[in-house]
Amino acid sequence: MQNESGLNPADTPATALVPPTGLQLPVVAPTANPALDAALAQRLALNGFPAHALGRLEALVLQLARIQATGPEHGFEKLLLDAPQAVVFAADHGIADEGVSAFAMETTRLRVLHMLAGRAPVNALADLHGFGLTVVDAGLASHLAPPEEAAKQVTLVTRKIGHGTRNMLLSPAMSVAQAVAALHAGMDVVRHLPGHVLALGDVGVGSTSSAALLLWRLCGVPLTEACAHPHAPEDGPNSRLQQNKLEKLQAVALRHRKAVAPLDALAAMGGFEIAMMAGAMLQAASERRVVLVDGFVACAAALVARGLCPAVADYWVFGHRSAQPGHRLALAQLQAQPLLDMDLHTGQAAGALLAWPLLQAAQSLLKN
Amino acid sequence: MQNESGLNPADTPATALVPPTGLQLPVVAPTANPALDAALAQRLALNGFPAHALGRLEALVLQLARIQATGPEHGFEKLLLDAPQAVVFAADHGIADEGVSAFAMETTRLRVLHMLAGRAPVNALADLHGFGLTVVDAGLASHLAPPEEAAKQVTLVTRKIGHGTRNMLLSPAMSVAQAVAALHAGMDVVRHLPGHVLALGDVGVGSTSSAALLLWRLCGVPLTEACAHPHAPEDGPNSRLQQNKLEKLQAVALRHRKAVAPLDALAAMGGFEIAMMAGAMLQAASERRVVLVDGFVACAAALVARGLCPAVADYWVFGHRSAQPGHRLALAQLQAQPLLDMDLHTGQAAGALLAWPLLQAAQSLLKN
Repeated sequence: MQNESGLNPADTPATALVPPTGLQLPVVAPTANPALDAALAQRLALNGFPAHALGRLEALVLQLARIQATGPEHGFEKLLLDAPQAVVFAADHGIADEGVSAFAMETTRLRVLHMLAGRAPVNALADLHGFGLTVVDAGLASHLAPPEEAAKQVTLVTRKIGHGTRNMLLSPAMSVAQAVAALHAGMDVVRHLPGHVLALGDVGVGSTSSAALLLWRLCGVPLTEACAHPHAPEDGPNSRLQQNKLEKLQAVALRHRKAVAPLDALAAMGGFEIAMMAGAMLQAASERRVVLVDGFVACAAALVARGLCPAVADYWVFGHRSAQPGHRLALAQLQAQPLLDMDLHTGQAAGALLAWPLLQAAQSLLKN
Repeated sequence: MQNESGLNPADTPATALVPPTGLQLPVVAPTANPALDAALAQRLALNGFPAHALGRLEALVLQLARIQATGPEHGFEKLLLDAPQAVVFAADHGIADEGVSAFAMETTRLRVLHMLAGRAPVNALADLHGFGLTVVDAGLASHLAPPEEAAKQVTLVTRKIGHGTRNMLLSPAMSVAQAVAALHAGMDVVRHLPGHVLALGDVGVGSTSSAALLLWRLCGVPLTEACAHPHAPEDGPNSRLQQNKLEKLQAVALRHRKAVAPLDALAAMGGFEIAMMAGAMLQAASERRVVLVDGFVACAAALVARGLCPAVADYWVFGHRSAQPGHRLALAQLQAQPLLDMDLHTGQAAGALLAWPLLQAAQSLLKN
């Protein structure tokens, strides 16, 4: 018996045997546009400077114009960077039970409360640069009651997938269904936000363990390098913490050695905030918004998003390079040249916001 | 016979035999303040982040607080960055007659007119960041008539020391008296400007020849490296231009090998805009203003200023590292870590203005 498509069921390809995950990805269009590139080069030459006088700003201008498809026919003046939004995804990690971080899991919640009260670095930078700030509870271990005197400029969005991931040394961090739900939630968060630019950051004790594992799994970077500590002396508490972290992550990597595809790796070794950030990146790109990427964990989300849909890479602007070796390696794997190199490691989108004025400068140089 | 001081004339030190130059330098106070450093570290720890989470921003915050001596007793909130000013010093160089630049000398005037008409990159950035913009005619070869439709935000100040320097292959670029006059004029320009921050840049065909020679003379950097071209392929017009430039500069270096002291080197191989910029730096530092330094030529001025008064270095914030090898070497000699690394080479203070929002970020992070 034949089905409606006229194919014998035995002819359907083998991939149909994989259980459907229900993942629905938005359509992301590549931005390459040689005609636009040529028009822009002509336009920049008008100011009488030697070629490439604007250096890397020129590449930034070109990328922004490509993303918005703002060609000479519209006048380059149409490049828009209105109502920029910062989104910080917060979640807890079960692996924190293994002592892989210098901080207790409770610290995640305290940092989120700090942001909600308007006292974190990202608040100061969001105020300075006119960003809307949304904090998403992607999966904190505890219930989050917003503080009574919450800062006006901050919105808390609750999209809890679970009360922290499971300890990935003992089981997958989350089910594939949870990973898909988190990706979808991230898309949904972006759909409800205005603006041409999204700055994405994260907070969560234990998150760099997930980031290091994803960097190892998706790019083949050795774990010893992916989880190295920027300031670990050869001896002392940092060094012992570091040694423990590496041993635990090696055990995690061994346990989940069969989780190879991006979605499977995300479920086995990722975090709720990483999955949600990857979803947010894909949705933002599908709407042709600029995605301003923050630190190491955001780069891990970028690796997952690229694994699911490579064209998303056209929409990323990398804010900064931190002191973390893993971040530097992830940027190299993403072929990224971040705008700043300031040795920050605050997380929480602060590095992305710090780089924002360079986008404004690119816009104003194009207008002039 | 003894003079009034009670000293026999024969006892006066040998330096008194050097003819007086008439140079009057302002008093620049070093900013070091260990108590302030400790108070700041304590303050930054309050936000609950690990030590050094703000990376290089922390050093910037500290430098700004030291410059304004804004300690805990005043509350760090007193850090002020009001009414920032950009000053672009313009001058011509006689050495341009030797074909050391890809541009004709006339280009300097055209670029100045471009700025006065509000159409240069520095105009766009000054508008974006709320800088006042002053263009100083330190010694253009021709008379400068401001364009009829001059941009409102730009002020032209005429402090012409001469109609371009002399060709330093044939004679000193300027007399010591002219160098002193230019230094004094630079101080005077700053005295008439408001604001807590001065961004200093320059424009002048042939200026990188002077900058390379000063880098060689004052720091011992070999001329082959100091005047290297960022994009010169091994063959082609750029390479021939480069070879010619190197030969001419080697001849200049040989001719002026006895001009060793900073003021003598400045007179023999400098430029009017370099001398004036050095004066501006010294005056700004004496008034405890932050000096935001632009490109290679501004760094050459910084080397001269440091030679005259080392404490001036405490007041510099270096905006960016350009693609020019000479700039990179000059920054290394100045022990400078510039804020940006964007491969710009526009000159005209654009790189300094581009970095400005990082100072604002530092200020707002300290306030929070």
